[in-house]
Amino acid sequence: MNLSEVGEIPLLEAVRKKFSRTVPGLVVGIGDDAAVIKPSKAPMLLTTDMMVEGVHFDLRWTTSFQLGFKLVSVNVSDIYAMGGRPRFLLLNFAAPKDFDTELFHNFFKGIRKALKTYSLDLIGGDISASEKVILSATVIGHARKILRRSGAQVGDCVYVSGYLGNSACGLQLMRRIKRTVEIEKNKRVEYGPGWKVISPLLRRYLMPEVVPPDKFTDKATAMMDISDGLLVDLSRLCRESRVGVTIYEESIPMSRELKETAKLLKKDPLDLALGGGEDYELLFTAPENQRVDAFCIGMIMESGMKIVHKTGKTSTIVIKGYQHFAV
Amino acid sequence: MNLSEVGEIPLLEAVRKKFSRTVPGLVVGIGDDAAVIKPSKAPMLLTTDMMVEGVHFDLRWTTSFQLGFKLVSVNVSDIYAMGGRPRFLLLNFAAPKDFDTELFHNFFKGIRKALKTYSLDLIGGDISASEKVILSATVIGHARKILRRSGAQVGDCVYVSGYLGNSACGLQLMRRIKRTVEIEKNKRVEYGPGWKVISPLLRRYLMPEVVPPDKFTDKATAMMDISDGLLVDLSRLCRESRVGVTIYEESIPMSRELKETAKLLKKDPLDLALGGGEDYELLFTAPENQRVDAFCIGMIMESGMKIVHKTGKTSTIVIKGYQHFAV
Repeated sequence: MNLSEVGEIPLLEAVRKKFSRTVPGLVVGIGDDAAVIKPSKAPMLLTTDMMVEGVHFDLRWTTSFQLGFKLVSVNVSDIYAMGGRPRFLLLNFAAPKDFDTELFHNFFKGIRKALKTYSLDLIGGDISASEKVILSATVIGHARKILRRSGAQVGDCVYVSGYLGNSACGLQLMRRIKRTVEIEKNKRVEYGPGWKVISPLLRRYLMPEVVPPDKFTDKATAMMDISDGLLVDLSRLCRESRVGVTIYEESIPMSRELKETAKLLKKDPLDLALGGGEDYELLFTAPENQRVDAFCIGMIMESGMKIVHKTGKTSTIVIKGYQHFAV
Repeated sequence: MNLSEVGEIPLLEAVRKKFSRTVPGLVVGIGDDAAVIKPSKAPMLLTTDMMVEGVHFDLRWTTSFQLGFKLVSVNVSDIYAMGGRPRFLLLNFAAPKDFDTELFHNFFKGIRKALKTYSLDLIGGDISASEKVILSATVIGHARKILRRSGAQVGDCVYVSGYLGNSACGLQLMRRIKRTVEIEKNKRVEYGPGWKVISPLLRRYLMPEVVPPDKFTDKATAMMDISDGLLVDLSRLCRESRVGVTIYEESIPMSRELKETAKLLKKDPLDLALGGGEDYELLFTAPENQRVDAFCIGMIMESGMKIVHKTGKTSTIVIKGYQHFAV
């Protein structure tokens, strides 16, 4: 069966049935012209992202379950990056008329899995036809303390919340494996250094789970998530905070799996960690002499962006990272 | 110049500069991971919509200014339909790398025009590359009294806020004119019955301006906007309210311009008014014996959907209206 054999209204009804439930703070959910939520005492966070087939994902090697999960993760990552907690999701789904109904329902299974993982609820959106699969999501959250990109102070340490480069290496692997790997169903694929080594990389790329900022929020002075690559995003944080930075090559957190796999793929793991993108780890700054459960990669300076190499040599950072419309 | 010659970051910066301003209720606008708004005492309304080139619009006969304006209107219409006022807009814009920079800026001029018209502010979003132009918007609003689709009572009158079918007739005209008509620059085109007759139809299709529900909210029992055609949307209102309806053919408000143009195009104006869609007028119910400044088209009944024709004959309504994924 494909979507045109079922029709828009039954599809919408199916989604509504699956996702309608009584939610604290929600007055009107899916099924009216707009969703209605109760007033809250905390400031409200709002973020939106679009994912387009052929640009942001490739259905030859991404299952629709993974796509649904990742779409939510990417948006939740933005809420976490402000120090917030996600509460509600709005979703637009567009696909070709001949899109398989099973893929459609699997996409919503991925969405549901993510909603459970991050404790948020689907409250509205729309479904329409298009030539390619196009997704857009809006996540609404709340924050106790808001962490902006602009709060970094000279002398602050620079932290990242986890390993970098895993996702970019996962993408490199998928381009070679060239078929879907249903990690959500514990399906394995043997490739290169073997499943045990490649699976955390594939998972990070295909269905990244992002980590809440709770243990950092009280200490952090500035925060953002790493989506376009460490260096690009760090340069944004510095620009917004009107500061510079020095980072240390030897402090960049890279997993054993990344190093082993990159070597086999003849890629420089440091390149993937600095500019690969889609890490969806938190990048933040906090005053020195604080105990922070994250990787300290450098220090905020008056100006300039520098990297100290393992050799001891220092060089000015040249930005590498994903830009749309780059030629 | 095209988008790839400028690059994503300068494009984002240009948008940020143009739209950043101090707004009551806004804590963080464009430029961080998420927008932050202050808590409010009123319930909050949230709606999202996507518009895809080739499905929802055709760039051969829609200017990017009109596109920007219409994208906002369509979303504001959903907020109005719940009895609310729009406050904030989040926007995702995707276009091919060779998309003309002037078209890009014109799109944002259309957005700006709409923001002024409806008193709301752009507070976030993203720009990315894609093969076709893809837009998604989320509008956040507030409501004093929420009007759902489900509140219609047996005996209520059924109202529409304005003429129906103008937009659908405008689309029929554009399919024949087959080039852009810059009504935003007071450019005219002579076609069929002439500019004076066709211009309100073209305007309603190309850049509809939607009317706030304020004068209806206190009286209305149920409300929604007409986007997929009167009959489809009326059937939704009836289903949600668990009621039926009888409407009167002679009461369907149709403009003189629609009747005159439809005749020339060999279309039935009633067909366009009942099922054409994209009217973006309000459809609502209110108790009898109220003074309501809108067109009364029928009455809510226990069950069934019927239409009384001009001849006096009554027939059961057969749903005509736009459905995505319809074959």
